[in-house]
Amino acid sequence: MDLLSRIKARETRAIARALTLVENGDDAFCAALDAEYTNLPHPERIGITGPPGSGKSTLTSALLSEYRRQGKRVGVVAVDPSSPFSGGALLGDRLRMTAHSLDADVFVRSMASRGRFGGLAIGSEDACDVLALAGFDPIIVETVGVGQSEVDIARLADTTVVVLTPSAGDSVQALKAGIMEIAEVVAINKADREGAERLEEDVKEGMELRPESARAWNPPIVRTVATQGQGASELAAAIAQHRTFLGSNGLLAGVRQKRAESRLTDLAGAALLDALKGQGRANTAFEGLRGQVRARQLSPRAAVKALLQQLAL
Amino acid sequence: MDLLSRIKARETRAIARALTLVENGDDAFCAALDAEYTNLPHPERIGITGPPGSGKSTLTSALLSEYRRQGKRVGVVAVDPSSPFSGGALLGDRLRMTAHSLDADVFVRSMASRGRFGGLAIGSEDACDVLALAGFDPIIVETVGVGQSEVDIARLADTTVVVLTPSAGDSVQALKAGIMEIAEVVAINKADREGAERLEEDVKEGMELRPESARAWNPPIVRTVATQGQGASELAAAIAQHRTFLGSNGLLAGVRQKRAESRLTDLAGAALLDALKGQGRANTAFEGLRGQVRARQLSPRAAVKALLQQLAL
Repeated sequence: MDLLSRIKARETRAIARALTLVENGDDAFCAALDAEYTNLPHPERIGITGPPGSGKSTLTSALLSEYRRQGKRVGVVAVDPSSPFSGGALLGDRLRMTAHSLDADVFVRSMASRGRFGGLAIGSEDACDVLALAGFDPIIVETVGVGQSEVDIARLADTTVVVLTPSAGDSVQALKAGIMEIAEVVAINKADREGAERLEEDVKEGMELRPESARAWNPPIVRTVATQGQGASELAAAIAQHRTFLGSNGLLAGVRQKRAESRLTDLAGAALLDALKGQGRANTAFEGLRGQVRARQLSPRAAVKALLQQLAL
Repeated sequence: MDLLSRIKARETRAIARALTLVENGDDAFCAALDAEYTNLPHPERIGITGPPGSGKSTLTSALLSEYRRQGKRVGVVAVDPSSPFSGGALLGDRLRMTAHSLDADVFVRSMASRGRFGGLAIGSEDACDVLALAGFDPIIVETVGVGQSEVDIARLADTTVVVLTPSAGDSVQALKAGIMEIAEVVAINKADREGAERLEEDVKEGMELRPESARAWNPPIVRTVATQGQGASELAAAIAQHRTFLGSNGLLAGVRQKRAESRLTDLAGAALLDALKGQGRANTAFEGLRGQVRARQLSPRAAVKALLQQLAL
């Protein structure tokens, strides 16, 4: 049986193998997966993000347990943005998730995303497709909110949960930087700590600053203590509310269309760069210009102008 | 007098204006700057990076004071990777640097880098060129080490300083993730805290794991207490040592060549993506395929293949 059939038959080892292939950007497998594209199921996609130390992984684990209680098969893609610095909590918390590791209706996968261009987005999209093919629903994508990744996750998910934690300064910072733009549900985790009340007020204030166009949906705020599983069912309920909102307003198709277009742009960007290193016309032009840049006869910017002209783009 | 001449004449307002123009990617100014490319001076470039909370900005400020004592004119580009989460210390510490704000021989500029593709690299390179034109030497580029940015800064700088702080877990994490690959000087900041000794040992151990090829240079480890200016002159000396190493081994030309090539690749990637949204052949092809993706008749990956074929790249 080929790999795709084995994935559809929900063979754990086949799924694991496929995820490794997409992580490595394996051309043959990506092409095979791609042939299924128009037939893929559309599981619910939930994004979970937040600052380092907010307990995202523990909360994901608690949410996972809640979905299991509801009898759902849950896939988790935990994306490590591969910084020397920001990887802090990932390893330990990943291990915690292995509480679910003997459960065949749960699949948890950590993925690195070292790639420069659209790395998180491209790899995770493919991973979500593999898990969709294997019948997991919902699929949770979790990543630390640093750099570009929180924008990527908002694109990947139908519903984005932003996890915040009461602690000095954090709230103000998060609100200031426009985090409300991506939050469809806000989880105040470690809500047994001092400051939860204030943080919730700050979040509410932040929401009032949202533009009119973003106000059709009012993000619920859920308090959780993930280490004790507290608030997990309320969080699941809030996510379901948002899902219902998307469905009943005909917005889901638009979300998916936008996602497909973003994926197209990411893949196109990566492919065009690859073409410069390839075997064709683009590479010939690029190599010539690169030599001139190396010899300092031409500036990089002038070389790029020449490149576009030579390729008549 | 045109803007470039005013920059060369070291007019503060002209420099500030130019930095705003490069931050916004202003085509006309970038082209004018580009015309100076082969004549630009080559000031020393120092990169300073480290995890959030390590005191990078305070250390940059201390180093800046040290260079001023040495009579140098110092330019600082502080790059904020613009995350909703990671921006923590930037604002306050930036303000601290305004201690230098009345000094005409110092120019400190904060830059955002929201751009998706090579954002930090492209904007900061241009900013460094502006400061070079204005005669600043050295130029310090400071950024928080999250996501891609610490790789970018290593490319931007002749000498990369990694700032670490004694605190539970941090050291091990940083070492594990290969931070030694980019560190040419290690600053152990807040060295009056408990754990500095252990961190230094961890860093040394990490260095022994470096590949043979990276061992021509042995990164000095400097202890600093940036808030009190302690260790700033030792740090400047360690940076100067590395600079001498690069110079005496004929490595500096290679560093600059590699940098120019990276810049070429970044600019090419951005320009090719722009071409998809432009007025030419690339856009015509892309728009047609985008429509099919939107209608779910074609997968994004298949569309990209078709795009490359249509453009004959």
